[in-house]
Amino acid sequence: MNEVELIEQLTRHLPGHPSTLVGAGDDCAVLDFGDPGRVVLFKTDAVVEGIHFEAGTDPARVGHKALARCLSDVAAMAGTPTHALVTLAVPADFDARYLERLYAGLSELAAKHGVGIVGGETTTNPERILISVAMLGTAVRGQCPLRSGAKPGDAVFVTGELGGARAGKHLDFEPRLAQARWLVEHFPVHAMIDLSDGLARDLRHVLKASQVGAELLDEAIPISRAARQTARASAGAKPARVAALTDGEDFELLFTVPSRQAVPLLDAWKKAFPDLKLSCIGKITAAPGLTLRNKQGRRPLTVDGYVHFQKP
Amino acid sequence: MNEVELIEQLTRHLPGHPSTLVGAGDDCAVLDFGDPGRVVLFKTDAVVEGIHFEAGTDPARVGHKALARCLSDVAAMAGTPTHALVTLAVPADFDARYLERLYAGLSELAAKHGVGIVGGETTTNPERILISVAMLGTAVRGQCPLRSGAKPGDAVFVTGELGGARAGKHLDFEPRLAQARWLVEHFPVHAMIDLSDGLARDLRHVLKASQVGAELLDEAIPISRAARQTARASAGAKPARVAALTDGEDFELLFTVPSRQAVPLLDAWKKAFPDLKLSCIGKITAAPGLTLRNKQGRRPLTVDGYVHFQKP
Repeated sequence: MNEVELIEQLTRHLPGHPSTLVGAGDDCAVLDFGDPGRVVLFKTDAVVEGIHFEAGTDPARVGHKALARCLSDVAAMAGTPTHALVTLAVPADFDARYLERLYAGLSELAAKHGVGIVGGETTTNPERILISVAMLGTAVRGQCPLRSGAKPGDAVFVTGELGGARAGKHLDFEPRLAQARWLVEHFPVHAMIDLSDGLARDLRHVLKASQVGAELLDEAIPISRAARQTARASAGAKPARVAALTDGEDFELLFTVPSRQAVPLLDAWKKAFPDLKLSCIGKITAAPGLTLRNKQGRRPLTVDGYVHFQKP
Repeated sequence: MNEVELIEQLTRHLPGHPSTLVGAGDDCAVLDFGDPGRVVLFKTDAVVEGIHFEAGTDPARVGHKALARCLSDVAAMAGTPTHALVTLAVPADFDARYLERLYAGLSELAAKHGVGIVGGETTTNPERILISVAMLGTAVRGQCPLRSGAKPGDAVFVTGELGGARAGKHLDFEPRLAQARWLVEHFPVHAMIDLSDGLARDLRHVLKASQVGAELLDEAIPISRAARQTARASAGAKPARVAALTDGEDFELLFTVPSRQAVPLLDAWKKAFPDLKLSCIGKITAAPGLTLRNKQGRRPLTVDGYVHFQKP
């Protein structure tokens, strides 16, 4: 049993609460706290030194990343973030200057998005720094796109360019909050997720939740400059197109809309967000599975999107 | 600068949000999410292996403790807990059975108090287990006792018996949720806090926030059997009465009510909670500082309550 399977098993029979609209398994939990117009979003996310960031990283960028990951989950629900609590677990000989810089990075991003940091705690983790952020937000009731809403015939879109985030973007990315809210206000978004585990894996989460399949167009996948540079930098690196399909931490949005909305959406997007690319990368199919179409034809994509692209 | 001072400095100028009723510095943040009758409580708390629990501890008890600490904070606001997210940071070679037992402990306590566990995540902390719980709850608007509400002349009460929690109670304690709600429904509770850092330290949090002092009656402090046993067990142990004043993790409630309510409260409490001791341990004074009165007179108590009691 791998970790994902174990957690699925452990969380299958958790206690519930009547005000839970969406529990474990989407980007945020969705809760009803009595406002007739809005629902409450609830999410936590942790970053760990040596795993999600290197020990020598500027702590302001670490603080930015810790909060931005949660904000990206709120974006995936087309929400507005409101309040955060910050848990810092640090070695006993922690450096005051380090924590000041960390809070500076957190606070700058929080202020930019109107998020109140309303507390938290500092505790001890002797060997390394761990930062866990708990986030609250709200969304318009009935306008919260879930992973489970994709329908056969939908067009699949992604924002930005994919792959190579480890070169730097994973620390500095901007959560797509304004874009997500604009999307649900102007178009019937059926499903949405933020890309944290890589396009191939995250799209599979949508397909599984929606009980559908998808066909991607190889040439339509937007490949980032960082993915191309990383691919060129060493002979052993994965090809840039594989990186775009499989690298984690892009924190772009993937969403689906009915296919007849695809062209109007692309037109409206260019006017609303001229500086951010939007790509239609494929379509949702009734047949399960994830396939990739290119000039050679159509073939299944593995979970990691990787094996079929490796050169022999 | 010590840790507490550093965190106070770091959190003094955090970004705010207009719906924040109470931010950092009380047992929970208190937020307005649009329900005219109720406010929302928001809190996180983490436990770390080797610090808050020993490596060999039954994981079900660890799970219980991780959730119970957050529930105790909700109790201190006279709230009703509703939803939790659980972050497990575990070494890569984690044991599936361990996590199952941990979730069993968490789930049993959550179900007992009607808390929905609506998600969370598992991440890697290579050297030790860390469990962070993010908690939401609600409270009746206008019936949330803060640390800042104590007034000169108030009587100071504590539930249960104090000291020696490390002998076992810190893993198995029952958060005083029902008692706290009963209190605010029946009596004008001015201030309330849960005892996590020890009576002397936590009372000082109330005194500082309320800008008042307090005089405790030495003989009225309820000393637990565990504190007496620990004191007897070794010559170097602190005396039981010092343990009751200074040991952490009692997770009992400390609160103040106008002194004229003290006798009616004690009478009503005995009927409502015949199995849980309630002690009036002193009074709030206009003069700042914390003093202890016994047969020898009245003398100041140090932050830790300790020095003045040590035998020469």
